[in-house]
Amino acid sequence: LRGRARGITSTDIARKAGVSQATVSRVLNGYEHVSDELRGRVLDVIERDGYAPNAIARGLVTRRTQLVGVIVADIVNPFYPELVEALAANLADRGLKMLFQNAGRGEEEEYVRVLLEHRVEGIIFTSALQSSSAVRRLVEQRLPVVLTNREVAGAACDTVVSDNVGGARAAASHLLELGHKRIALVRGYGGASTSDERERAFTERLGESGLVLPSEYRREGRFEHERAYGEVLRLLSLENPPTAIFCVNDLMAFAALNAARAAGLGVPRDLSVVGFDSIGMAGWESLSLTSVRQPIADIARSAVDLLNRRINDPERPIERRVFPSELMVRGTTSAPSRRPGSPESLGGAGGR
Amino acid sequence: LRGRARGITSTDIARKAGVSQATVSRVLNGYEHVSDELRGRVLDVIERDGYAPNAIARGLVTRRTQLVGVIVADIVNPFYPELVEALAANLADRGLKMLFQNAGRGEEEEYVRVLLEHRVEGIIFTSALQSSSAVRRLVEQRLPVVLTNREVAGAACDTVVSDNVGGARAAASHLLELGHKRIALVRGYGGASTSDERERAFTERLGESGLVLPSEYRREGRFEHERAYGEVLRLLSLENPPTAIFCVNDLMAFAALNAARAAGLGVPRDLSVVGFDSIGMAGWESLSLTSVRQPIADIARSAVDLLNRRINDPERPIERRVFPSELMVRGTTSAPSRRPGSPESLGGAGGR
Repeated sequence: LRGRARGITSTDIARKAGVSQATVSRVLNGYEHVSDELRGRVLDVIERDGYAPNAIARGLVTRRTQLVGVIVADIVNPFYPELVEALAANLADRGLKMLFQNAGRGEEEEYVRVLLEHRVEGIIFTSALQSSSAVRRLVEQRLPVVLTNREVAGAACDTVVSDNVGGARAAASHLLELGHKRIALVRGYGGASTSDERERAFTERLGESGLVLPSEYRREGRFEHERAYGEVLRLLSLENPPTAIFCVNDLMAFAALNAARAAGLGVPRDLSVVGFDSIGMAGWESLSLTSVRQPIADIARSAVDLLNRRINDPERPIERRVFPSELMVRGTTSAPSRRPGSPESLGGAGGR
Repeated sequence: LRGRARGITSTDIARKAGVSQATVSRVLNGYEHVSDELRGRVLDVIERDGYAPNAIARGLVTRRTQLVGVIVADIVNPFYPELVEALAANLADRGLKMLFQNAGRGEEEEYVRVLLEHRVEGIIFTSALQSSSAVRRLVEQRLPVVLTNREVAGAACDTVVSDNVGGARAAASHLLELGHKRIALVRGYGGASTSDERERAFTERLGESGLVLPSEYRREGRFEHERAYGEVLRLLSLENPPTAIFCVNDLMAFAALNAARAAGLGVPRDLSVVGFDSIGMAGWESLSLTSVRQPIADIARSAVDLLNRRINDPERPIERRVFPSELMVRGTTSAPSRRPGSPESLGGAGGR
């Protein structure tokens, strides 16, 4: 049986179907000049025969592979598994299968090439960078593409995001209303629309209340736990440490909680922390993170819906869907405490 | 360009390569009777031409798709993203690509069928059940299969696991040495070798110290946070609640921490908790979970190595590799406190 597992020759198919090799070739190559009866016999053999490469054969015949590429930046960031699970369920509902690529430290061109080699019918990007030339090129070449989570300015393709501006403004308003004046921000990396938009909106909202975010309060955590952890430790060891930190994703906010604990600080007593995403873990009693919720289920359903429409109707107008985000106030935010190092006594980190 | 994105006919290829359609058919069907020069011209067109289905064409020619199926039980359980990331990196190092299936609530037969349709060269199961008929059938049919994490008794295939028995015994010894006598266990679901082995070894080690695990102290958390959370709340509301809980994976142990907090209990003061896996999050200061470490990087490297060897040499002897596990003592375990509800005063949950 081993030979079959690796491929079936048209000789095998011809013998089993009782047709000529020329007929098998015509069927496999998608020619029209084959009777339905002969075509049926060939496809039956291919379908029934153990590991016959039926999806591939079917792909050659119907021009459909039913594969959809999904690219995520970092599957270990727990935001992405939630999105991937929701995408997989929605794709399965439509008979589509996910060819999954974890971008990690790899090159965009390389993982896009892999997806194309396997003839995906479309690609859902969950973490494209603004600089992505692959997205622009694929759109130009009219491969169905949907961007979720992160946008690429100027790419004429369907996009599903949540309201980053409203969410980040709500986070800022919440900290301002609690009375915080020394507020720091931990961003992702440059070129990620999520990080860029959240940072801009957050900073702008602070500015409307007369607060300027000093450069030493603006740190790059690269969306990673370890990197954010180190940056928060550095923030906390400043002469004037912040009393509140907004992190542009939950994973970095968890890192802030961990770093605060490592520095001997209580949250929210000594430090308030706000995240973005409000993934399942944010609601855990042990973490109880105040965070801006993205409606992941809605985003995934909408992304698959748009991709499916685009596959079936390449000429339809481009859509951009924006889902509302919502601040979930939990246990990591409170008013700043009045003690050495608090805004009322600038200049000393005392007690720390 | 759209047509190309969906498939290229042999007519197109023949025209561009300047060869006859019969030659293209011979190349696509893997016949030997084509000169290297003509074959090269055909493959060049297929390779170069936009979205040409080169992986598929190449698969038909070389009988290799370079695809490896990876099946995980639940990508939202943070153990699996760590394993998937490590598997993806090791596969990429060998030029192999991952066709990822999140089993979720789906049928095993269905997701295996999808992988086979796309002619994977092998499958890495990370969460096969003992009852898996698919694994046994694939092995019989000589598709290269590697089981990681969970084993299937009697399946003659390469397997990579960590030492579940040693790890669970170490967890039991630790709790016994701390002086716990009312120890509960939260298991996964039946038929998962990890859960079965850890439960058996843990129970056996308790038995060696004269401790019997009563049935009301044995709960099924199905490896899920929500389910385990409910079961731990029920354990904590027993007339004689346990002073320590061993959960057979970290996700359920985190649920135990959360449930304890919801019940107003301090960990480890009122309740000790031990997990299994020791994923990255277990080391977070906010969780600081005592847990049995599985060496995920070693397991992933070994699984890909074995699959690769099996693909290249189907006749090699079956290997089973067992990596040592190690108890990591962190902040969620201590001696039981002496207060109402502790072993010295059976009968009252007092103070709770």
